[in-house]
Amino acid sequence: MNKKDWIEGFAFLLSDKDAHPDLWKTRTLSQMKSWFRDQTAVESVLAIEDPVIYEYQELGAPEHPGDVAFGLSRVFPGKIGHEYYMTKGHFHNIIDTAEVYYGLSGHGILLIENEAGEWKTLPLEPGVASYVPKGYAHRSVNTGEEPLEFFYAFRADAGHNYGRIETTGFSHAVTDE
Amino acid sequence: MNKKDWIEGFAFLLSDKDAHPDLWKTRTLSQMKSWFRDQTAVESVLAIEDPVIYEYQELGAPEHPGDVAFGLSRVFPGKIGHEYYMTKGHFHNIIDTAEVYYGLSGHGILLIENEAGEWKTLPLEPGVASYVPKGYAHRSVNTGEEPLEFFYAFRADAGHNYGRIETTGFSHAVTDE
Repeated sequence: MNKKDWIEGFAFLLSDKDAHPDLWKTRTLSQMKSWFRDQTAVESVLAIEDPVIYEYQELGAPEHPGDVAFGLSRVFPGKIGHEYYMTKGHFHNIIDTAEVYYGLSGHGILLIENEAGEWKTLPLEPGVASYVPKGYAHRSVNTGEEPLEFFYAFRADAGHNYGRIETTGFSHAVTDE
Repeated sequence: MNKKDWIEGFAFLLSDKDAHPDLWKTRTLSQMKSWFRDQTAVESVLAIEDPVIYEYQELGAPEHPGDVAFGLSRVFPGKIGHEYYMTKGHFHNIIDTAEVYYGLSGHGILLIENEAGEWKTLPLEPGVASYVPKGYAHRSVNTGEEPLEFFYAFRADAGHNYGRIETTGFSHAVTDE
């Protein structure tokens, strides 16, 4: 999408990856080693392959408070040790901005946690809307056996802060134990 | 949804109407008579029945610029004269705010028009994201034979201005002609 599209409106088949391969960003295990808890398991997997953990669309919405950033996200099924495949997770740079997810396929968990350490999990399921309130970091976890896919939307100038999660992490992990 | 939900986060099966009937608002023909072009056809239909033209979810998001208002909308199939069933259409009160739609089922058209009279149509189709840019009034039209259903999201303090559309209308109508 170019700047003109966001000013004049546009529509396209978001769910067709082949139509817009350039809109998808990929995160492989080697790009998020430190995010998983079991570093021995990370190294064991990486000795054999570098799996794609998740992918998401980045449409380049202008960072304007009146625009809406949106797209699809897809977390693949799998585990690193006992921990399920998940997104890195992030706060928004403008921390007081929310985000909504609408589940399209697969089964998972949305882990949310605020700066005070208050946390909870929400379901990510087809037909379910899950609301990340203002001030909460959020991470999507695929606990199922098929890709977990959902639509996301948030205020376009909110931004992402991944560094804080890399440093402090979430207080809880989602495992098969 | 109460105020606490929006502060602490929530999730629920949006697509299950039976689970949350109170979240759905209904618009019948008698509530939007003047919106259709063929007043003779309006009166002919109303002499027999008062059909539901569309329904939508209103979850009561706090009117805060960091929150996101969202829900499902459903426009039923049908015509009044030659004009397809449609929503009233509205500008946002904070006119410089956008809205995104994600098509879930059915086939339709999103009609958008700004204050300068510039207009265009966008498809409303399953898997398609349709972006209403800042400053554009928008109306959803069902041109198919099944219910047109989509997920919508916009900044929660944007508000709705229906009155302006009632007074001035859209410059174009979607008909079967």
